[in-house]
Amino acid sequence: MTNVHDLPPLAVTGRLDRLRAGFDAARCDALLVTDLTNVRWLTGFTGSAGRLLVTPTNALLVTDGRYTTQARAQLDASGADVGLEIRSAEQLELLARAAGPIARLGLEAASISWAEQRAVAAAFGAGVEPVPTDGLVERLRMVKDDAELARMGAAAAAADAALAAVLPTVVAGVSEREIALGLEVAMRHAGATGPAYETIVASGPNAALPHARPTDRRLERGDLVIIDVGSVVDGYRSDMTRTFVLGEPTAEQRRMLDAVTEAQALGVAAVAEGVALREVDRVCREHLAGLGLGDAFSHGTGHGVGLVIHEEPRVNDRATGTLAPGHVVTVEPGVYLPGVGGVRVEDLVVVTATGCRPLTSSPKQPFLG
Amino acid sequence: MTNVHDLPPLAVTGRLDRLRAGFDAARCDALLVTDLTNVRWLTGFTGSAGRLLVTPTNALLVTDGRYTTQARAQLDASGADVGLEIRSAEQLELLARAAGPIARLGLEAASISWAEQRAVAAAFGAGVEPVPTDGLVERLRMVKDDAELARMGAAAAAADAALAAVLPTVVAGVSEREIALGLEVAMRHAGATGPAYETIVASGPNAALPHARPTDRRLERGDLVIIDVGSVVDGYRSDMTRTFVLGEPTAEQRRMLDAVTEAQALGVAAVAEGVALREVDRVCREHLAGLGLGDAFSHGTGHGVGLVIHEEPRVNDRATGTLAPGHVVTVEPGVYLPGVGGVRVEDLVVVTATGCRPLTSSPKQPFLG
Repeated sequence: MTNVHDLPPLAVTGRLDRLRAGFDAARCDALLVTDLTNVRWLTGFTGSAGRLLVTPTNALLVTDGRYTTQARAQLDASGADVGLEIRSAEQLELLARAAGPIARLGLEAASISWAEQRAVAAAFGAGVEPVPTDGLVERLRMVKDDAELARMGAAAAAADAALAAVLPTVVAGVSEREIALGLEVAMRHAGATGPAYETIVASGPNAALPHARPTDRRLERGDLVIIDVGSVVDGYRSDMTRTFVLGEPTAEQRRMLDAVTEAQALGVAAVAEGVALREVDRVCREHLAGLGLGDAFSHGTGHGVGLVIHEEPRVNDRATGTLAPGHVVTVEPGVYLPGVGGVRVEDLVVVTATGCRPLTSSPKQPFLG
Repeated sequence: MTNVHDLPPLAVTGRLDRLRAGFDAARCDALLVTDLTNVRWLTGFTGSAGRLLVTPTNALLVTDGRYTTQARAQLDASGADVGLEIRSAEQLELLARAAGPIARLGLEAASISWAEQRAVAAAFGAGVEPVPTDGLVERLRMVKDDAELARMGAAAAAADAALAAVLPTVVAGVSEREIALGLEVAMRHAGATGPAYETIVASGPNAALPHARPTDRRLERGDLVIIDVGSVVDGYRSDMTRTFVLGEPTAEQRRMLDAVTEAQALGVAAVAEGVALREVDRVCREHLAGLGLGDAFSHGTGHGVGLVIHEEPRVNDRATGTLAPGHVVTVEPGVYLPGVGGVRVEDLVVVTATGCRPLTSSPKQPFLG
């Protein structure tokens, strides 16, 4: 059981300077960070409201009176070189005065609302041009440091423990919803603060839906059962999927299980520093296509995980980047056959210089009972 | 225990026409609905991606291939007079062609991202002016129909049942987190799909924080314990708070409990059709101020609840509207004294012509053990 106080402390040192190094390419003089996950990653502040202005020489966090004590403590704990102002109104006007002489203010276009962009433009005035930026902080967040990896490892371990605890209850007659609830309780007993996403338990025909949600359907002998479970420790998330058969598999179920398990192992084996994201996807996709299951693999191979469950980098056939040490990605091929069911196998791995290190470690033993 | 199939079916009939009736005042010819809660309320579609264009004569929902079957079924079930197109790319271009001759396209400025607004502007071309709109659908959502009220009542009943089930475990030595987890499990056993928000259990000094999150702190004799618990049934939420004392209350605790319980009852008694939102807030605030607790009441009196836990109308001293039949609001005054603790009492009520009907019904008996 993880105690967050036993994990190495999170520190944000150096992150602001890495962000500033990207300003020129993004054609901005400063960045207003409004995405709260990005604010957290840059400063350690976890409040539900706040705006961070990063200029070439300064950084200023503005939040409201609910967070006076918390913000001060979190900035101190994270080592963030960030000023703090508490203000419940006219935050943007305060930031505009603090910005100094800037001509182009970067905004996080994918997350800032249009209303907020208009308010920023009004507060900063005609002399400052709002500039849309795309993923400046998200790209930095891709590379996890040791303290972040320790949390993600603890989250993965809590989900492993939860699955081990609940597996004896995965039997005919129990509902998907009951199993999902059991997993969410067990992961908390294992030290997680909660689920990383809505736990998926998809049985029988429901397993043919990649994005199934748990229902009141009771498991039956002969079902394929997909269990997709992750947890959160200190804000960081894990993600893992295993597929089981209740009883003797049919020839078709065995073929699906073997194909996906092999494809997933090939995908994990392909992960290493410098490898194209698209290549990991191709390895999984070609293996399944070679077995006549190409069309049944209807989603990408994986995605980055961190403070958010789906983040950069994406591992699919449209991805253009390459893997780097410290990236944490899922490898999760699956096949889905309407009327028959589905199989998905997923691990969360950290990219290293020579390959990758799995964070998830539940056994891949699909035959139950 | 609620079975959602026993509830009256949700129907969206008439909602699009009520929305269209607001176009002129919003100075738009059509509205692109991008907020997914608004899409759900207008069409019944609950997918995680989709855009709805509403013109004076037509409505078209575009979503992607993951939702082909679900979208068709949900539009049929809700009775929505809405066309459906499945498209994984160039959705905005499709909508621009379908829009017909419009000059001013309303966008939901508070939720649409700046990037999306720019993409809309590009897809619709220079002949169509994007117009920021504010709360067009949210204002309609304030008034709940009988099917919505049935779901909110079921959600409130599940939270009532959960609190009754867990109350015997609210004793010294148990942690806040354990009680919160117990509530979230018990509400599911009572038919909820999950918590409406992160359940709050705040004890002792933690109860002095209006937005406390459950910690590992173990309850002690003499604590004030705030429990803020709501659940979800078929998308609709409930919200309720009770405050307890473990053991004999001190004179100060009893004074706080009496003051807030009285203020809350006065607030509920003030709720009726045609009453100013501000008036409900004033009634609670003046009662507490008269007892010297005005400064300790550091938040608004309440808020609307529905598909979202905090929605319109807001019940505070800046609100300008009045209550109407079918509005569902919380009445939740609280006082918070650093170092001492806090008390909050909250019910969820439906506005009627003559007053209001509470949806939450847990007893207000604060003395435990």
